[in-house]
Amino acid sequence: MAESPERLRRRVEELERQLARERSLRGAGGDGGGRTRIEKMSPEVVGSNPYSRLMALKRMGIVSDYEKIRTFSVAVVGVGGVGSVTAEMLARCGIGKLLLFDYDKVELANMNRLFFQPHQAGLSKVEAAEHTLRNINPDVLFEVHNYNITTVENFQHFMDRISNGGLEEGTPVDLVLSCVDNFEARMAINTACNELGQTWLESGVSENAVSGHIQLMIPGESACFACAPPLVVAANIDEKTLKREGVCAASLPTTMGVVAGILVQNVLKFLLNFGTVSFYLGYNAMQDFFPTMSMKPNPQCDDRNCRKQQEEYKKKVAALPKQEVVQEEEEIIHEDNEWGIELVSEVSEEELKNSSGPVPDLPEGITVAYTIPKKDDSVPEVTVEDSGESLEDLMAKMRNM
Amino acid sequence: MAESPERLRRRVEELERQLARERSLRGAGGDGGGRTRIEKMSPEVVGSNPYSRLMALKRMGIVSDYEKIRTFSVAVVGVGGVGSVTAEMLARCGIGKLLLFDYDKVELANMNRLFFQPHQAGLSKVEAAEHTLRNINPDVLFEVHNYNITTVENFQHFMDRISNGGLEEGTPVDLVLSCVDNFEARMAINTACNELGQTWLESGVSENAVSGHIQLMIPGESACFACAPPLVVAANIDEKTLKREGVCAASLPTTMGVVAGILVQNVLKFLLNFGTVSFYLGYNAMQDFFPTMSMKPNPQCDDRNCRKQQEEYKKKVAALPKQEVVQEEEEIIHEDNEWGIELVSEVSEEELKNSSGPVPDLPEGITVAYTIPKKDDSVPEVTVEDSGESLEDLMAKMRNM
Repeated sequence: MAESPERLRRRVEELERQLARERSLRGAGGDGGGRTRIEKMSPEVVGSNPYSRLMALKRMGIVSDYEKIRTFSVAVVGVGGVGSVTAEMLARCGIGKLLLFDYDKVELANMNRLFFQPHQAGLSKVEAAEHTLRNINPDVLFEVHNYNITTVENFQHFMDRISNGGLEEGTPVDLVLSCVDNFEARMAINTACNELGQTWLESGVSENAVSGHIQLMIPGESACFACAPPLVVAANIDEKTLKREGVCAASLPTTMGVVAGILVQNVLKFLLNFGTVSFYLGYNAMQDFFPTMSMKPNPQCDDRNCRKQQEEYKKKVAALPKQEVVQEEEEIIHEDNEWGIELVSEVSEEELKNSSGPVPDLPEGITVAYTIPKKDDSVPEVTVEDSGESLEDLMAKMRNM
Repeated sequence: MAESPERLRRRVEELERQLARERSLRGAGGDGGGRTRIEKMSPEVVGSNPYSRLMALKRMGIVSDYEKIRTFSVAVVGVGGVGSVTAEMLARCGIGKLLLFDYDKVELANMNRLFFQPHQAGLSKVEAAEHTLRNINPDVLFEVHNYNITTVENFQHFMDRISNGGLEEGTPVDLVLSCVDNFEARMAINTACNELGQTWLESGVSENAVSGHIQLMIPGESACFACAPPLVVAANIDEKTLKREGVCAASLPTTMGVVAGILVQNVLKFLLNFGTVSFYLGYNAMQDFFPTMSMKPNPQCDDRNCRKQQEEYKKKVAALPKQEVVQEEEEIIHEDNEWGIELVSEVSEEELKNSSGPVPDLPEGITVAYTIPKKDDSVPEVTVEDSGESLEDLMAKMRNM
């Protein structure tokens, strides 16, 4: 549909006028109309202090040293429905530095999730996110990379930035958060983190938009993305089904907001040393069911560096005096064996057997740690077909995350 | 100076890109930066369709009639850390109409939660929210009220808008969501909804920022805010402790994002008839523990209109043929008695007795439906003092929400 030159010229004029207006508005508003930088976090209770409600966590006895948040650097890989909200929460909490990785552009089709706005359509996600987040909290340092981490060249650069992109250049980041939507990117992060011994958290939302999960991976200590059968199978399923041409996955701002919320909450617990960090936390929106579990690494893991990290972890733990081992556990977890990694279950073996679905056949050291509520047969099933709640079905859903 | 159409087209594209960048830098869409209105939701999978990922919920078998979302009107009372994100999620989901009630102004001290941005400081929360949300989704109708609903005059107006502020003027809204932070406002909403027979959902986040809850109230069917002892006691405690001069409650974008997420997820399940709507869902961030329960209304409730609604509900149910009663239950719940309201428990009586804390003394018809995981005494307690996990402590936390 060819437009007349006259029409195009009028459009150019109109756009030039709007652009001038925007530039003048931005000029008038100073640095984006935001706030000035703050050198030191203050607990003062005044309306003009953006940190007062966070510093109150100390007075409430939740966090002993909230200011420490400014010393941490976190990499967020994937700045979509989960990653953008994750980055916003961290920025608003006053994190020291954020590294953002994505290679998508903002589209109107993203508007059913939080964060991006229609006027940002066409911008790269990392550029749009940086603008918004800098405006919200100018105290945060940003480093953004508009590329796909899975190509050979970019992967090397990604590894380099994870190793050197800490608050002080040359030091590693404190955490890597995976907020990607495909298997290949997850495997790339897993490979990099196993090689570097870098702790990371994985997150995911199912294609039908009604379930999600987060998972903490500490190389050598807990199962990696390639260790655990459900996730390895997941990988194969993902690869075939996710991101097919013409297939449009469903998504909801609710599910993605909850997943980002539980992800960043666990990041805060991990970094600021309060509460109990979950190794795995699922969210089933149909039933408001939140399964938890944790898994030992697989000694036969396909990833050579995972096996190497496992050996190193064993040596490290064996070399420590008993007292220090206990202290190390204190920081993040709640298990009771000497490696600090064991399956956590709030249900007995019997309850597990009595649960509605069959227990999947998992290798030694890996079992499930949750049951599915039994259905009451006297009441007709209300949920739609896709939400059957047997253990098998839930495992299948997990595989699709 | 005739330029070629091709050149002009490239110039238009370049200007559009620059304009998007400027608007993004400014941090707000402003007027005219958004998208045009859309008459009819389309399932078409193209980048320019803001509803494609929501309409995909039909193809995925989750929701049978997603477009119905446009016929609903929802009132959000309190546009703070939970209410603003709640309103944003509903707007992005394409809700028909939003009524927003608040009387606060945006301050920099709100920047540790999602939604508001520094350049909005000084604006009323409802005005700032309307501006942002209209820009995000111009298809939503907005009605905002910048007043305190608890004064006599405003309360009458609030009642009038709940009764008449539906998508078609003169019809009631479909749901009222309480996202307020004090007892007085919760009681005002409870009083109004009991009088009008208006279904509502209550939400809350604790003063120490690490727990929250949502609760569904259907007048006559489920316990109202004045029915249940924990919440009645809560009221008295709130009144004395919340919003004291000079006391600054802690807050986190994570906890508030999770609470808004589970709130709106249950709103979607309720309005679009999928999954199971939770009557009560709690969130304990320290342990990633999500208790659920539901409560029968209290026949001795202090609220005269609650008792009246209970009588009417009994009559209504008794008058229905048995088949229809079952169907009505199907829509929202999972209980097994003839009133459709009974305590839901995933644990046995014995497990409840074995739980770590004493069972509180509740009147007939009201008991708790969850247990707290037993602590392993061999591992030192990691959580800080305030997060003790006995049942008593948890009840105390609930009272503070």
